[in-house]
Amino acid sequence: MKANSIQKDQNKIKDILYTIIFESNTIGGKIFDILLIVAILLSCIVVMVHSSLELQIEYESTLYAVEWFFSILFTIEYALRIYSAKNKWMYIFSFYGIIDFISTLPSYVELLYAGTQILILIRIFRVLRVFRILKLFRFINASKYLLNAIVASRHKIMVFFGFLLTIVTSMGALMYIIEGPENGFTSIPKGIYWAIVTLTTVGYGDIAPQTLLGQSLASVIMILGYAIIAVPTGIISSEITSAKLSRPSKSCSNCSKLNHDDNAKYCDHCGTSLGD
Amino acid sequence: MKANSIQKDQNKIKDILYTIIFESNTIGGKIFDILLIVAILLSCIVVMVHSSLELQIEYESTLYAVEWFFSILFTIEYALRIYSAKNKWMYIFSFYGIIDFISTLPSYVELLYAGTQILILIRIFRVLRVFRILKLFRFINASKYLLNAIVASRHKIMVFFGFLLTIVTSMGALMYIIEGPENGFTSIPKGIYWAIVTLTTVGYGDIAPQTLLGQSLASVIMILGYAIIAVPTGIISSEITSAKLSRPSKSCSNCSKLNHDDNAKYCDHCGTSLGD
Amino acid sequence: MKANSIQKDQNKIKDILYTIIFESNTIGGKIFDILLIVAILLSCIVVMVHSSLELQIEYESTLYAVEWFFSILFTIEYALRIYSAKNKWMYIFSFYGIIDFISTLPSYVELLYAGTQILILIRIFRVLRVFRILKLFRFINASKYLLNAIVASRHKIMVFFGFLLTIVTSMGALMYIIEGPENGFTSIPKGIYWAIVTLTTVGYGDIAPQTLLGQSLASVIMILGYAIIAVPTGIISSEITSAKLSRPSKSCSNCSKLNHDDNAKYCDHCGTSLGD
Amino acid sequence: MKANSIQKDQNKIKDILYTIIFESNTIGGKIFDILLIVAILLSCIVVMVHSSLELQIEYESTLYAVEWFFSILFTIEYALRIYSAKNKWMYIFSFYGIIDFISTLPSYVELLYAGTQILILIRIFRVLRVFRILKLFRFINASKYLLNAIVASRHKIMVFFGFLLTIVTSMGALMYIIEGPENGFTSIPKGIYWAIVTLTTVGYGDIAPQTLLGQSLASVIMILGYAIIAVPTGIISSEITSAKLSRPSKSCSNCSKLNHDDNAKYCDHCGTSLGD
Repeated sequence: MKANSIQKDQNKIKDILYTIIFESNTIGGKIFDILLIVAILLSCIVVMVHSSLELQIEYESTLYAVEWFFSILFTIEYALRIYSAKNKWMYIFSFYGIIDFISTLPSYVELLYAGTQILILIRIFRVLRVFRILKLFRFINASKYLLNAIVASRHKIMVFFGFLLTIVTSMGALMYIIEGPENGFTSIPKGIYWAIVTLTTVGYGDIAPQTLLGQSLASVIMILGYAIIAVPTGIISSEITSAKLSRPSKSCSNCSKLNHDDNAKYCDHCGTSLGD
Repeated sequence: MKANSIQKDQNKIKDILYTIIFESNTIGGKIFDILLIVAILLSCIVVMVHSSLELQIEYESTLYAVEWFFSILFTIEYALRIYSAKNKWMYIFSFYGIIDFISTLPSYVELLYAGTQILILIRIFRVLRVFRILKLFRFINASKYLLNAIVASRHKIMVFFGFLLTIVTSMGALMYIIEGPENGFTSIPKGIYWAIVTLTTVGYGDIAPQTLLGQSLASVIMILGYAIIAVPTGIISSEITSAKLSRPSKSCSNCSKLNHDDNAKYCDHCGTSLGD
Repeated sequence: MKANSIQKDQNKIKDILYTIIFESNTIGGKIFDILLIVAILLSCIVVMVHSSLELQIEYESTLYAVEWFFSILFTIEYALRIYSAKNKWMYIFSFYGIIDFISTLPSYVELLYAGTQILILIRIFRVLRVFRILKLFRFINASKYLLNAIVASRHKIMVFFGFLLTIVTSMGALMYIIEGPENGFTSIPKGIYWAIVTLTTVGYGDIAPQTLLGQSLASVIMILGYAIIAVPTGIISSEITSAKLSRPSKSCSNCSKLNHDDNAKYCDHCGTSLGD
Repeated sequence: MKANSIQKDQNKIKDILYTIIFESNTIGGKIFDILLIVAILLSCIVVMVHSSLELQIEYESTLYAVEWFFSILFTIEYALRIYSAKNKWMYIFSFYGIIDFISTLPSYVELLYAGTQILILIRIFRVLRVFRILKLFRFINASKYLLNAIVASRHKIMVFFGFLLTIVTSMGALMYIIEGPENGFTSIPKGIYWAIVTLTTVGYGDIAPQTLLGQSLASVIMILGYAIIAVPTGIISSEITSAKLSRPSKSCSNCSKLNHDDNAKYCDHCGTSLGD
């Protein structure tokens, strides 16, 4: 009888925790979300400050303490999430489960190497903590909208990237022949890197053609590239535009005005009820 | 009786001043506006010339005189605006009230430090005067149109920026691990700065990946970035396009031609009256 | 009688010349146009080659001869145009009349300074000849289409440029305060130049922020700039899209398919006559 | 009788080979395609690695062996394609026939020069093998879609490029006069190269204006360039958008929802059959 009651109490706590941690339509849930976002951002800033060499030496012990504070905080969060999750294994192997795991792990791993000299490993695990920023994805729930626009045109985008791959490989090889190692094009991959930097209009300038022939070819790539590069923008523009225009329920039956807000009840032009 | 008459006269002057200074549909108001625009632009050019080291030494006294001329001019304008404003406090704490205040203040503050050696403060207050350019906003009344397109899609743009934040933070941290301080990536913030410079296709080239692995990752960022970066253009394009297409009153009832001018009276295709 | 006949003959020659030189729907007119385009392009290439220092010394006399050949050719063309033009003064002061004049003048002016040492003037007049390329505008008759898209949105574009002006001036002044002359921002105009280079995503990298604060502000400018800079693309995209969609005559009355070619006679989807 | 039977058998083998090599709707054809894609990509990676100087010396013999393996593989493929092609000459002189030929040739040509010192020729023929990447085009069958959007607006794009040509030539010449050889603008073609790099927003920074006048003109080019450069994006966006909106068969006859998938059978909004 008593065991049963404890079991019941535990279930109740689990349910409350679940509502607070995983949902966001109660006051408790909202406060938890805001605190979590603040903790994520602060923790990332601390990791960033720690990565700066000068500040690292000056405030070593303070930074160390603050980092451990956040590591323990996220460990508790991770433990509570596993405890209250409805399907433990599904959560653990979900995208967010893995991100939550990575947010706690690095600090403990760092301990193992504390006495050793493997500085590079320490640096890597220290920096890994900055990926806690990915926890933010949980709160960008509207990102589905944009993802849809990209997913809907994934076929065209993939074809576009296939096309791009052959263009930059050919152009990179051509520039490697024309300019040669003496002008910075030391290998074909370097030439391809240059072609990508040029076609995307980034243009670092660390490698730039020096010969007249090379500069002429580069000019052709830039101008032609402009027509090519306009394509993904065009694809996504048209995807979003037609998604906007194709929502049929919100066009007015009286004056046929389109583009009402999703939660509009009356036509904002003639006042006719929008039905829905 | 006399005091009353003076009061009346004052109110009359106030009204005339208000019409001239705050409105622009009378001849006096238009002349005032044009003179003000010219004064703003000239005053900004003077501040710019003053900031150039060589010119500063040569024409010091002339520049000084001209700057005081404009400072006094804008002080008079500010005083008259406060005097004639219908709601003094509302004006003073409005966006334009603050800009007008900043347009006059720096010259007087500079006087206080004239004899001292705090050159940096003098420089700052001198340069602050260039923000008089913001007075121009008063005359860009059509800017609401563009602002609307941005405001209407603020949600999508915020999601986009949230997405961007996580991308550049992750990529910056990754490049910090891969390239390390020896190739210019001296801290994670530096890596994030590089990721922003690359994703927005600005590409200064002051920091650029040197290792093959770094250059490969940079290539991926640039190409993927292209698909990501096309999104805001697409959002705003579709917002403006659908805003254009959704204005219902100006479509012809006879031949259904869209996109007449806002002040068209007859369909420019078939001559049918557009009703309005 | 004889004078009258000569007059008549002259008028006839004038008419034939006019048809050949100014129009392009006869065989003679087409051949003249093609020869003129070839002459313009060749002449520009010669001027370009002449501007290269090494080639200039080697082929001096040949280049000199070829340039004079083209100068005399364009002088004859200019004389014939004036002779055959229906309204001489209107032609001379038209855009193309001025371009034709500039295409012939520099060579003769150069002769005047031949013996003197005013090399800079010779260089300028020599280079001016390359503006013969503007003669090509005569043949880009479809450019009206694009010009219309830009003209139709000139108001929005002007507002946008006004907005840009205030942004880059404020940002340039701010960066001048933050970074100062020691990091390349030697004056406010230099700061404005940097802001323009950054906002338009050109990013030369000749001036780049060095301090953490400066790099943070630069990051904000780049990202915010991305939202701002998407606006003109959006404006022109929507202008062209709605121009395409608003042509009413070419939508099928049977299946309502839009976007037929301008000279289509039947619906390419259901075969119904398109009327028009 | 026997010869006839052999002939028949040969025809049968030819047919099977044709189905496997040229078509991709049988299992054999699909496996062949996938193996070919893998071979193309691996072979390109090997050529790239070989172009890197350090790796070239270390793994010379291994790389040499692997390259010959792929060369022989593609030679066999080429021979089989000719053998099984329905119209041999048409295949040989088709785009893909030439690409296949170039994929086999360079290795054999390299042998001829093996003993000699003409290193540049060896390098060129070695690099040429990387154009095997163009074999991939065979598999990007959806590229027609994008090509159509570009082809449909070829007229506008050509006008745009004509316009661009005159702009960059004029601006390049102007900058050559303003900045002169002492600031890197050593000839008009160099100025034109700079103008292209600037207008396309690539901005290497290898040549950048140094004088105030030059920087002012550059600013004007960048900002004006932004309006100009938005045009091709606008053209292609509108082309794709109107292509999407103009497909008439897939709009619902009941609720007029547009933009159904090409293979949708029922309206995804109201369930009405889409007819087709």
